[in-house]
Amino acid sequence: MQESPIGPISDPFSRSSSAPLVPAPSRAPSPVLLMTSPASPFHGLSAFPITPSDTQGRVDTAALEILLTRLVAAGVDSIGLLGSTGTYAYLSRTERRRAVEAASALVAKRIPLVVGIGALRTDEAVDLARDAAEAGADGLLLAPVSYTPLTEDEVFAHFAAVAAATDLSLCIYNNPGTTHFTFTPALIGRLAGLPNVVALKNPAAAPVDAPTLHANLRAAVPEAFAIGYSADWNVTEAILAGGQAWYSVCGGLLPEPTQKLMRAAQAHDIAQVGMWKARFEPLWALFRELTSLRVIYAAADILGLSTALPPRPILPLAPTHHPRIAAALEPLLQPA
Amino acid sequence: MQESPIGPISDPFSRSSSAPLVPAPSRAPSPVLLMTSPASPFHGLSAFPITPSDTQGRVDTAALEILLTRLVAAGVDSIGLLGSTGTYAYLSRTERRRAVEAASALVAKRIPLVVGIGALRTDEAVDLARDAAEAGADGLLLAPVSYTPLTEDEVFAHFAAVAAATDLSLCIYNNPGTTHFTFTPALIGRLAGLPNVVALKNPAAAPVDAPTLHANLRAAVPEAFAIGYSADWNVTEAILAGGQAWYSVCGGLLPEPTQKLMRAAQAHDIAQVGMWKARFEPLWALFRELTSLRVIYAAADILGLSTALPPRPILPLAPTHHPRIAAALEPLLQPA
Repeated sequence: MQESPIGPISDPFSRSSSAPLVPAPSRAPSPVLLMTSPASPFHGLSAFPITPSDTQGRVDTAALEILLTRLVAAGVDSIGLLGSTGTYAYLSRTERRRAVEAASALVAKRIPLVVGIGALRTDEAVDLARDAAEAGADGLLLAPVSYTPLTEDEVFAHFAAVAAATDLSLCIYNNPGTTHFTFTPALIGRLAGLPNVVALKNPAAAPVDAPTLHANLRAAVPEAFAIGYSADWNVTEAILAGGQAWYSVCGGLLPEPTQKLMRAAQAHDIAQVGMWKARFEPLWALFRELTSLRVIYAAADILGLSTALPPRPILPLAPTHHPRIAAALEPLLQPA
Repeated sequence: MQESPIGPISDPFSRSSSAPLVPAPSRAPSPVLLMTSPASPFHGLSAFPITPSDTQGRVDTAALEILLTRLVAAGVDSIGLLGSTGTYAYLSRTERRRAVEAASALVAKRIPLVVGIGALRTDEAVDLARDAAEAGADGLLLAPVSYTPLTEDEVFAHFAAVAAATDLSLCIYNNPGTTHFTFTPALIGRLAGLPNVVALKNPAAAPVDAPTLHANLRAAVPEAFAIGYSADWNVTEAILAGGQAWYSVCGGLLPEPTQKLMRAAQAHDIAQVGMWKARFEPLWALFRELTSLRVIYAAADILGLSTALPPRPILPLAPTHHPRIAAALEPLLQPA
């Protein structure tokens, strides 16, 4: 039932000495990182940063660059810009384009840049796909955002229209908790028949169900189609079950330890997996209790990396939670 | 457990001979209609029309005026512009303002104009509230649209910010099927403490549960707070249980028969209620099967009132459904 990961498996500790947790900004492309980049933007660890913005929804590109610089330095396998954690749904077309342009300029093709283009309207998603391509994206994430609940045929037509409007490869962004649309394996299989729909980002199941979920998804799609997972606290088992990508909130703020766990899981190094899972568990417990989005904004503030607040109506966590979050971050800031 | 409706109870047939189903357009205010208007825009039959728009999301104000003219002529108690049926979530701020301006000019204060101002961002909802007021709205409907699931405190702060930005009265638009937020009676009670939050639009429960739901809601809010219901096929029992408003999809396209049922329910005329429910049941069955939004677009086309299509990704119903919809409309086009 398990399959070998298709993505490259590198030494989980190969970059631990050269990449500090908060490295100095650098825009110089690294040949080493280019050599270890995966074959597609939808394999390996995809790091999803927040998109710092002001109260009017204007993206703070300087603050974004601080976060992205860390991801490049850590050598994550891709950057997932404007995902749910990147609050894409709350940003205007203009601001989303500004964010992609700033990220593209900073990343400079050293790591694939994957961009969320979800929108309520099909024509908006088409426009966002074109914008992202023009602004330098290497791949696209498309979530079937909904207000009126959508039918399978509507979601298929939506994806087909967007896929036809771009040469970039597209990842199906399945996140029923925010989009309120649930993909069946049959629909995923149908979408995988579109030429440039090449990957899936799916919420990881509870660990005990990971192999069954992965087998069901795998059975629905062609061999070259990449299946990856989100929901950090359940992803390890999904990777061990054959998942090819980890779409990670932790990876967007804490790329070094997240990558160590990912590399251990890709190598099926169960001892290292266990050690890193234990270090992450306090933070994941807070994700489950307080939501990953709200916790990661507070964590970015605690780490001195961003003072941005989530877009209203989403409220920042009360300061009373900060000591708990600081304590949960502590094991992840220790040397390996 | 039941309470008397607070809204005025008029003869359900008083306008049947003077207002044909498809009346000639008229912009002249009617003193008779003014006399029978309810005390607040959140009592009685509130008719929710579609908002005809083109494939780029530009509102067809001429097509909208055709629909609104029917509502004015029928003398509904309010017009619910830019509700879920009015696809507010799919229209830009500019287009929503154009729709309100066109509606306000046409209705000319003959009937209260209630406008949906829901948006994902709090600052957008504030802007939409101000726009609607400037464009002539008489009341506002605020749905807690969400992408990231919202907490009760976030929804409260969102409503408080919007309420503070307008002098207009506000109705809580509770529609978990589209907003994915579920109000508790406690939160509704807390919101009812804001000075201009004066009404609730709640999905009607299954008929057997209507009295309990209404009693629970009524117990949570002040006496002057108006409780109304949506989900046409269940509303009759909610009105009989004391509901003060019917927020109606049918009312937006078929105001005459909808008003006859509403007047019968307000008068507790059980024989008339039964007769009208039987006439509506075939259409409601299609609402339940195919969704009210998709059916009402097709019905508008069948009746020759609008050829507009719903905004993509929402697809129009297949033409094979049209004969069924035409048949379901038939009993509602017969004389009373």
